[in-house]
Amino acid sequence: MERLVLHEYAQSGNCYKIRLTAALLGFPIERREYDIIRGETRTPEFLAQVNANGRIPVLQVGGRFLPESNAACWYLAEDSALIPGDRFARADMLRWMFFEQYSHEPNVATLRFWLAFVGEGNLSEAQRAQIPAKRAGGEAALELMDEHLASRDWMVGAGATLADIALFAYSHVADGGGFELARYPAIQRWISRIEALPGFVSIDG
Amino acid sequence: MERLVLHEYAQSGNCYKIRLTAALLGFPIERREYDIIRGETRTPEFLAQVNANGRIPVLQVGGRFLPESNAACWYLAEDSALIPGDRFARADMLRWMFFEQYSHEPNVATLRFWLAFVGEGNLSEAQRAQIPAKRAGGEAALELMDEHLASRDWMVGAGATLADIALFAYSHVADGGGFELARYPAIQRWISRIEALPGFVSIDG
Repeated sequence: MERLVLHEYAQSGNCYKIRLTAALLGFPIERREYDIIRGETRTPEFLAQVNANGRIPVLQVGGRFLPESNAACWYLAEDSALIPGDRFARADMLRWMFFEQYSHEPNVATLRFWLAFVGEGNLSEAQRAQIPAKRAGGEAALELMDEHLASRDWMVGAGATLADIALFAYSHVADGGGFELARYPAIQRWISRIEALPGFVSIDG
Repeated sequence: MERLVLHEYAQSGNCYKIRLTAALLGFPIERREYDIIRGETRTPEFLAQVNANGRIPVLQVGGRFLPESNAACWYLAEDSALIPGDRFARADMLRWMFFEQYSHEPNVATLRFWLAFVGEGNLSEAQRAQIPAKRAGGEAALELMDEHLASRDWMVGAGATLADIALFAYSHVADGGGFELARYPAIQRWISRIEALPGFVSIDG
């Protein structure tokens, strides 16, 4: 494996996904921190060298740059048990990773960022107007996961995969966005299973 | 390949991606239409049998159901030239597919759906309040693609991949959402390249 550098904001669940994947696989990874609240990922240097989309995380692999958290996790996990060997299961894992980015993260992660990091008083009127829809969308995503996990230990197949890592990242800190994890008992049991994986690191680690 | 059935709303770009992937690969695919405006994907039957998330597309493979457009495209394209053989390029393709679902579709596709299908007069106040942010987000996504394509023919590597199919689906009909494709000359040339691929089918096909 070439030298790995994670361009990140450590409290971002999207960045944490990549650290957790690397830790579970035993890959050392260097870390470079950016203050997204101060706009450090929108500087001309960052846009030119790291990511023209102005976002973290970006996984640097040698001299190449790979944005998008779930794509970076995929890069790290190829040929490991974190990606299922069966064709349908592999696609089903990607299905939950796309669900995470489309139906879960924009609601659960955004409310956490707005309420626990930016602060409700600092939100724009347009942002405040979106809170009810994001609350409902986040609850729907967590309910769907909870129902899915009620009858199985992992999101896909018989062991932990990238689908679990991707969905764990913001689910386990959803209380920061005002979601009540106590309402989702199957998610709580699944969180404990992930935290017990060999090599697990916490978001503060 | 087992029997393939696409549960869809034909004018959805997300559904079209799957038909286009199947067509480029020569796979026959049956189609079952749902009227999303009338809520046909939120019925108890649909939620229980097809997708508990209440959304289309869902690719049915034999007796199994695979939601999320880009996951379905991945399932169809495994072991084909639509997925790069190189590890970094493969992850980079997924990077653009996650970009599509996170930064492109929620802006470009949602404005097209609201303005060309629902009708601006039928939008809720909360939806109308989001139009300026979605307009800016969609333009940023199209600009990023246009800059990327200014110096290359395909999103990743030297030929068409799923990244091109995923981003083509809503880019080529972005005018329906009030975006001006004339502002993005590299995207326009890339659209012509995709339409010239052997086996290409149009969204109305």
